[in-house]
Amino acid sequence: MDVTRRETEKTRTPRSNGAEAEIMEFAKDFIEAIRNGNLDEIMSFYAPDVVAFDMMPPFEIMGRDAYRKSWQMYSEGMIFPTEQEMSHVDITCHGDVAFCRSLMKMKGQMKDGQKMDMSFRNTSCLRKINGEWLIVHEHNSVPIDMKTEKAIWNSEVKH
Amino acid sequence: MDVTRRETEKTRTPRSNGAEAEIMEFAKDFIEAIRNGNLDEIMSFYAPDVVAFDMMPPFEIMGRDAYRKSWQMYSEGMIFPTEQEMSHVDITCHGDVAFCRSLMKMKGQMKDGQKMDMSFRNTSCLRKINGEWLIVHEHNSVPIDMKTEKAIWNSEVKH
Repeated sequence: MDVTRRETEKTRTPRSNGAEAEIMEFAKDFIEAIRNGNLDEIMSFYAPDVVAFDMMPPFEIMGRDAYRKSWQMYSEGMIFPTEQEMSHVDITCHGDVAFCRSLMKMKGQMKDGQKMDMSFRNTSCLRKINGEWLIVHEHNSVPIDMKTEKAIWNSEVKH
Repeated sequence: MDVTRRETEKTRTPRSNGAEAEIMEFAKDFIEAIRNGNLDEIMSFYAPDVVAFDMMPPFEIMGRDAYRKSWQMYSEGMIFPTEQEMSHVDITCHGDVAFCRSLMKMKGQMKDGQKMDMSFRNTSCLRKINGEWLIVHEHNSVPIDMKTEKAIWNSEVKH
């Protein structure tokens, strides 16, 4: 159960200059949760009042309960584990406020037979609330081909 | 003003309020620069090593000089002033680190006669460097219609 993991983290004494390492660990745990597709576990990384700008509509998703609906489609629609790759990670933090940008690759098979294979950009904004980092704002997107106005799902990540 | 904003303010330290006002002013000045289309002025809001995830490719824009090329297209292609509207602004800050999310409406006429009229989501991540707030990471996007795979340019902003 995710609650156990979160409560264990809460009891750890945060080191004053270890926030970046904490957030990197948080990000890795989050990716692992996404890989395994457990909806409750995924949602435990978000603050109740998270606001998300996601690839799918709506334009603005207000609150964890609303965002759960988007994640539910993923959790119910995919075969797990999926492949998740995070790169170009950059974390900036001060006190109980942090932001993290990264490039993501997501690959997998849907239950209806379709394949999912895409690269997208992620910005996660975090706050430490009651000693626990949580995502208070998330922004996921792909760039748009301005001629066709279509999403570019498979941008190459330059290393 | 939404519930999220009020709840966030409740838990914020009084010290942050000065920084929040500074960033709100910064955002307003930035919008004014965009409205007028002066390229140097627009670029002065970014840190030299800004990383942008923009609506247009490339996937990841590394540095102010690279990002200038995107803004140059806007600066040279539009008739100024353009119409800019920022709403649902939410600022979170601690010390010299801040993030700000907002919904943007941009309207205008291109020199080639085309009209631009779109709504997009903005996440700006800032740092105070030598006493001056600068954008170190920016993320702009529109959601995608998953059936047509096309960009949704005119999402309605709910108030």
